[in-house]
Amino acid sequence: MKKINVGLVGFGTIGAGVADILLKKREEWKKTLDIDINLKKIADLDIETDRGVNVPKELLTTNYKEIVDDPEIEIVIELVGGYDFAKKLILESIEMGKNIVTANKALLAVYGKEIFDKAIEKKVDIYYDAAVAGGIPIIKVVKEAMLANNIEKIFGIINGTCNYILTTMKNEGLSFEEALKKAQELGFAEADPTFDIDGIDSAHKLTILASLVYWREVKMEDFITEGIRKITSLDVKFAEELGYTVKLLAIARDREDGIELRVHPTLIPSKSTLASILYEFNAVMIKGNFVDELLLKGKGAGRYPTASAVVSDVIDIARNIINNSVGRVPPYHRGGELKRILPREEIITQYYLRFSSLDKPGVLAKITNILGDVGISIKAVIQKDGELKDGEYVPVVILTHKTKEGIMLKALEKFKELVGDIIESEPQILRVEEDL
Amino acid sequence: MKKINVGLVGFGTIGAGVADILLKKREEWKKTLDIDINLKKIADLDIETDRGVNVPKELLTTNYKEIVDDPEIEIVIELVGGYDFAKKLILESIEMGKNIVTANKALLAVYGKEIFDKAIEKKVDIYYDAAVAGGIPIIKVVKEAMLANNIEKIFGIINGTCNYILTTMKNEGLSFEEALKKAQELGFAEADPTFDIDGIDSAHKLTILASLVYWREVKMEDFITEGIRKITSLDVKFAEELGYTVKLLAIARDREDGIELRVHPTLIPSKSTLASILYEFNAVMIKGNFVDELLLKGKGAGRYPTASAVVSDVIDIARNIINNSVGRVPPYHRGGELKRILPREEIITQYYLRFSSLDKPGVLAKITNILGDVGISIKAVIQKDGELKDGEYVPVVILTHKTKEGIMLKALEKFKELVGDIIESEPQILRVEEDL
Repeated sequence: MKKINVGLVGFGTIGAGVADILLKKREEWKKTLDIDINLKKIADLDIETDRGVNVPKELLTTNYKEIVDDPEIEIVIELVGGYDFAKKLILESIEMGKNIVTANKALLAVYGKEIFDKAIEKKVDIYYDAAVAGGIPIIKVVKEAMLANNIEKIFGIINGTCNYILTTMKNEGLSFEEALKKAQELGFAEADPTFDIDGIDSAHKLTILASLVYWREVKMEDFITEGIRKITSLDVKFAEELGYTVKLLAIARDREDGIELRVHPTLIPSKSTLASILYEFNAVMIKGNFVDELLLKGKGAGRYPTASAVVSDVIDIARNIINNSVGRVPPYHRGGELKRILPREEIITQYYLRFSSLDKPGVLAKITNILGDVGISIKAVIQKDGELKDGEYVPVVILTHKTKEGIMLKALEKFKELVGDIIESEPQILRVEEDL
Repeated sequence: MKKINVGLVGFGTIGAGVADILLKKREEWKKTLDIDINLKKIADLDIETDRGVNVPKELLTTNYKEIVDDPEIEIVIELVGGYDFAKKLILESIEMGKNIVTANKALLAVYGKEIFDKAIEKKVDIYYDAAVAGGIPIIKVVKEAMLANNIEKIFGIINGTCNYILTTMKNEGLSFEEALKKAQELGFAEADPTFDIDGIDSAHKLTILASLVYWREVKMEDFITEGIRKITSLDVKFAEELGYTVKLLAIARDREDGIELRVHPTLIPSKSTLASILYEFNAVMIKGNFVDELLLKGKGAGRYPTASAVVSDVIDIARNIINNSVGRVPPYHRGGELKRILPREEIITQYYLRFSSLDKPGVLAKITNILGDVGISIKAVIQKDGELKDGEYVPVVILTHKTKEGIMLKALEKFKELVGDIIESEPQILRVEEDL
């Protein structure tokens, strides 16, 4: 049995999980999979901190070159994160003919094409299933199990921090700040949560997914990304009253005239399967023209769920090495119909608008007239006083039918003129998706 | 570019979908996947009926030998269904060195080991993702994306007919007979629905899944299979009142002392994701010790969803042929810890019991005494009269805590003695699962 030597760079939370699994499972896999995977070296700047995992001391080094320069090592696992060093490590390893497994979504979102092209040129494998939705094998499913299909749409809950916060706001009635604090205390949010709650992490993952399914390079700057900071308890309650749940969604939709890509908080029907995805769980719904809707739900982060995905990639590559079939599944496909990414103004969706309006006659008429003037039709209106009254202002919530975002932006310009007059401030605007 | 010749045997609903996709996508795949898949021959006894799909006449034959004996054909797709001819076709094709794609769950459930062993011996691939849960790539995920994990449990809604009927009973208040009739009218149930509604189809699929994840041969006779014929509107309503939804589940659970396998209608929490799987959709929840819960939802049947899965398998094998890596992923893994399948009496679960009892004092005491005597503790009781009263009988529903099925069977023996005395007939007994 050929021994496949593996080097791991990055001995943090995920790295320790990967080392743990690789060391524990080696003997079993020799019997069950006929594969011998030998974790030969682990590199990290900090090899003193106890990671809660038993690893023979002699595996550890602070010098990553001991991995990159070791001709016996055929697979390098990059779990360093970030941009500069991770990119250098991966490119150097590819240059040395090594195959790569990485969970680094930020790196692939920004430098994916350069890195993948280098891997193709050097005829090595680069696998990255852990980079999108952690333990959910969405990359494998898209790359290998949906190849018959054109991907009509993707709706993804792919950031566990945001989903934890939004679930807590709904189920426990917390404010955004309270929910964020709780998430931080329980380890579901970082001390600096910007990357997650501003939607950047979800946008990175959508960039990777969209680049895969739409045969083209995609950049985060190509589409709008909005986070969940602006979501209030009031929005969560009104959404619920209207039969919706607020989720941070990464959305892709293939239209005749181009591709819609966007990341933003979204009202979705509370009866939908995606609305049942709670707390730190992730889920991705993909609709293919033949297979119809496929939904995958699982843990999107955490030591062992993510490590499980990394290890599956290691085994996949090991099988390629054993069978001389490295390169069997390329990191991306190209050559399909190339479509443009639609500008923000051309997005078509429904809207939820929440106004703080003066409680006097004619106010609702003024608001709805503006919508009527630009050509937006109204699906539902809620006007409430009583306990929700905020001084002299009462919330008015309007749900619209589908319209182009460009038209809604025009309405918004007109609403701004009412600020200080009949409304307290610009309305809260959220998007609504029904067909999922 | 090497041309991969494919032969299709079985030109029914799925077969026509497969032919349609293969013919339509060939040119695109040459550009995007660098693979040339040529559907060379289609064999069926009936090549006259219009299948609603454009296929060049010269591809059709009534003689399957034109496929099996053609040395240029490297992949045979078996979509005949049934046992005898399908088995013969597959074994003959393997003998001729051809790779196989099949969606035949019944055949694999009964003859899987013989067929797989033959494929291993002859060093050909046999892929069968369409055999379990149609368009959901559950076989690929289990075989390739969860290899780091021990599979702790599986809960599957893997029969669309049953799920359609149970959803209609709940959402539209239909009786079982009415819901079955509706399903038949809409094409979600066969004229003879026995295979589906008696749970046999689900049991076949569980057999295949369990055989994969528990490293052993599994036979349908090894575990209990109960269908949904016995579910009444009353059960659906009481379940709802208790916060549960009735689903036909295929269940596997890895315990210290062995493996639980079973197929039966099950009460699951209405808030769980599995309860949100409606109508003809299927879903499989698998819990691995590292990845935690993974759930896949999709279309479990139908022309194009199933064809999509078949075609993915064809591409997978084509990639193996091109890379000389046939056999890269074997049809099953063996060599792991071999556990026994637990006999029915050792199943541990909660129970829902519904009695038609006389509406007089002391009846509930007699029933609960029996449960207490055998050591089963009660979690909830509902006793209703009014509109649910059936002559002199009123329904009494009891929800128990977890117990062994052997103990429940003892209680059932005692309940039988009350029939004709204080209860009208043997109680309805359903199982309840909470931890999903």
